[in-house]
Amino acid sequence: MAKKSKTAITPTRVEDYSEWYQQVVRASDLAERSPVRGCMVIKPWGYALWENIVRELDDMFKETGVRNAYFPLFIPLSFLEKEAEHVEGFAKECAVVTHHRLEKGPEGRLVPAGSLTEPLVVRPTSETIIGDSFSKWVSSYRDLPLLINQWANVVRWEMRTRIFLRTSEFLWQEGHTAHATDKEAIERTWLMLDVYEKLAEEYLAMPVVKGRKSASERFPGAVDTLCIEAMMQDKKALQAGTSHFLGQNFAKASEIKFHSARETEEYAWTTSWGASTRLIGGIIMTHGDDDGIILPPRVASAHVVLMPIMKKPEDRAKVMEFTDALAKELRGKFYHHRRINVEIDDRDIGGRAWDWIKKGIPVRVEIGPRDIADNSVYVGRRDKGHTDKTSMKRNQFIEEITTILDEIQDTLFKRALTFREKNTIIIDDNKGFYEFFTPESQEKPGIHGGFSLSHWCGSDVCESKIKEDLSVTIRCIPLESEAEKGECVCCGKSGSGQVVFAKAY
Amino acid sequence: MAKKSKTAITPTRVEDYSEWYQQVVRASDLAERSPVRGCMVIKPWGYALWENIVRELDDMFKETGVRNAYFPLFIPLSFLEKEAEHVEGFAKECAVVTHHRLEKGPEGRLVPAGSLTEPLVVRPTSETIIGDSFSKWVSSYRDLPLLINQWANVVRWEMRTRIFLRTSEFLWQEGHTAHATDKEAIERTWLMLDVYEKLAEEYLAMPVVKGRKSASERFPGAVDTLCIEAMMQDKKALQAGTSHFLGQNFAKASEIKFHSARETEEYAWTTSWGASTRLIGGIIMTHGDDDGIILPPRVASAHVVLMPIMKKPEDRAKVMEFTDALAKELRGKFYHHRRINVEIDDRDIGGRAWDWIKKGIPVRVEIGPRDIADNSVYVGRRDKGHTDKTSMKRNQFIEEITTILDEIQDTLFKRALTFREKNTIIIDDNKGFYEFFTPESQEKPGIHGGFSLSHWCGSDVCESKIKEDLSVTIRCIPLESEAEKGECVCCGKSGSGQVVFAKAY
Repeated sequence: MAKKSKTAITPTRVEDYSEWYQQVVRASDLAERSPVRGCMVIKPWGYALWENIVRELDDMFKETGVRNAYFPLFIPLSFLEKEAEHVEGFAKECAVVTHHRLEKGPEGRLVPAGSLTEPLVVRPTSETIIGDSFSKWVSSYRDLPLLINQWANVVRWEMRTRIFLRTSEFLWQEGHTAHATDKEAIERTWLMLDVYEKLAEEYLAMPVVKGRKSASERFPGAVDTLCIEAMMQDKKALQAGTSHFLGQNFAKASEIKFHSARETEEYAWTTSWGASTRLIGGIIMTHGDDDGIILPPRVASAHVVLMPIMKKPEDRAKVMEFTDALAKELRGKFYHHRRINVEIDDRDIGGRAWDWIKKGIPVRVEIGPRDIADNSVYVGRRDKGHTDKTSMKRNQFIEEITTILDEIQDTLFKRALTFREKNTIIIDDNKGFYEFFTPESQEKPGIHGGFSLSHWCGSDVCESKIKEDLSVTIRCIPLESEAEKGECVCCGKSGSGQVVFAKAY
Repeated sequence: MAKKSKTAITPTRVEDYSEWYQQVVRASDLAERSPVRGCMVIKPWGYALWENIVRELDDMFKETGVRNAYFPLFIPLSFLEKEAEHVEGFAKECAVVTHHRLEKGPEGRLVPAGSLTEPLVVRPTSETIIGDSFSKWVSSYRDLPLLINQWANVVRWEMRTRIFLRTSEFLWQEGHTAHATDKEAIERTWLMLDVYEKLAEEYLAMPVVKGRKSASERFPGAVDTLCIEAMMQDKKALQAGTSHFLGQNFAKASEIKFHSARETEEYAWTTSWGASTRLIGGIIMTHGDDDGIILPPRVASAHVVLMPIMKKPEDRAKVMEFTDALAKELRGKFYHHRRINVEIDDRDIGGRAWDWIKKGIPVRVEIGPRDIADNSVYVGRRDKGHTDKTSMKRNQFIEEITTILDEIQDTLFKRALTFREKNTIIIDDNKGFYEFFTPESQEKPGIHGGFSLSHWCGSDVCESKIKEDLSVTIRCIPLESEAEKGECVCCGKSGSGQVVFAKAY
């Protein structure tokens, strides 16, 4: 293949990160905008990725005793109102169903008819509707803990949307648990955060910082919100999963009560935790390069593409036979408890290899008559440059494919970790902090400081000032740094512990 | 266990079939009504059953080249209006979103605000919104066939609802394909019907009749609707899956056009096909007895429950050790490419075995100190009477568990097939037909005739008359009977082929 000096994606990350993202999504064939405001269409290549994420996460949930269930899409308005902070948090972005049929209007066009007595809100999250079920399912301490998860679509009417990162409708899971004690509920909150950390780091190859949110960034109605935060390549933070300790707030709102072993009647302690298709946006922005996305092998929509080269018609039968046999053998193998997923692309078109580079498939294999004569294949890896290809003996390739996939997975994680470490610094003076978060040059729009580990006095006045001045927020308070003392980067007063400041998605 | 003369479910099927169904659902722990009108909560035991159905169906779809994707929940009203018959068919049962936020109203209560310029319909089915994507994805004959499936929730505002059978929100899959020729689209329509037949018969143990719908029972907008119909134990029919040949109707509505190999521009030929959580209602009504549901092993939420008997505290350690070891060994085995799913119920309560009978688990195992001394287990099968239990050597049980599960699966299918055959008769005279569908006795409410194989002239006048007189409809026109001539059971005119008449859900 001729050397290509241009990148597959225009603009590059450095030129315009935000536009790069849109172009990468388009080139990847993962998803596209829909004609419905703020909603996306997840295309087969993107949905296969989501299915793999779902499977891994679902297995991990089930290992901790969680069972799946399904609750109504619609929430009566009166339910949402049961928890004051909660409804306050979601009221501004609710899709509301007010009618239950259509009929011919005066101009012959259909109009909504059959007005509902009580409006229904399309679930933005399901604490209140699931709480209602929990109140029926729990009566004794013997019914606890109750560990439930739901895979579902949710709707939050967003004004500014971006595919995968912020859409009006998205797919997610929401776990909901009820416990007899606060201690047990808090443990569950942290346990599920560990599950998200494991998914992010071991499967998505995305290093994350674990911690808790400040009060102003908490889930509406929660006592404590834990989160994992990842650094994207524009050095902004992406919240990749949250786990909430809800105290007894929602138990009181939904009357989730139980008879304790001491024969008293008590409110349960509940948690909720969620991760969504937003993770796909995180994968794109963590690993993508100027040629498009790079899929982490453990969740990749497919692992390997075979591209037979058949310049002459008389080669076809032989090349396809070799290709099909290779595909069959690869598919018989497992990579991390999933069968190796092989695509065959026998199209005779220019840019075929580029299509797969842009789709981010981990391994590309070219197979021509000369390779076959040598019993070889010509292998390209997505974690390396597109011209960096190697000839391998067919059987050696089959033997080493899982090792190659593991290497790619490792490379992606280490590369992302190095990037984050390079762009995470300790700043304890106000001037340095403001400089860090002020872009030096307009030639590099969208490139920001990174993660600043800085002390904070704990006041929301300082938090708001920083947010207003710099659009920088406290992403999380890492657990390990809570003890250490220092001076607030905003007001200079003494505070406890370093927190992670960053611009965020 | 003492002999129990009463059945676990009251009333029995013969006493009141409809109420029996409600009580079986309640006793099974599969699902329950929600506070949201017409919507259900699918509980963990029911959702696990659905997950197994999903997995089997999904694998079968993928084997035929279908890929999953996801499309918006909301359909702009103007999209739905693109196909006249289609919107006509769904207008009376649409949930309509008209607002996108909530704000404090005059009385301090929240009210819908932020009126939408164009109302959005919560998808009752997705032909029009998916058609829009297809119109962008297809431009050449090389892009065809396009084979897409979506797993999703849909909403049809039903006035009379019944859990699993008819709910305002339900879970389903909807397949949508586009083809270059009518021939290929028609073949796909039949291929997917074969998939549904296989799911029903081989996995749900539910025998079905395959055929096409009469014009009046077609999907709104379809050229031809194929279906599988199963007989429930009240001898009524349940439509268990449908596959539609849509001709070029939706391609014209959504502008799905392609350049053919002959360089002409043509409309594509499309199909759609769906099956839903309704299948669970079918399982209940096909296999349930007066003690509750019976889950077909191949899709059962779990296969085996182990019930350790520990009357004395000093037995506990030994009995639990034996039980855990047995569970571990069973879980190491596969039944029909799924790991054997084992529940352990160590609760010390009366009615424990009855709970599992009502939940329909295929195999129950009691393990007491005496069994352990003999290295045996005491085995009950859900396809046999609840007192019909057998002592088996532990290792023999492990060895034979998959055979036992296969036997139960076979028994359920054969029992259902025998029932259907017994209640399917050929009727060609009007008097006999009317007698067959008129309940003989008010002592057996809800017990009806069955399937009548009768000739029909093809006119919708006769079809309507029968529907009005008897609430009996043409369930399907079986393919094999189309050729044979005979006289219409309603008007006596000559018609071609026998059709299946029945009352239906």
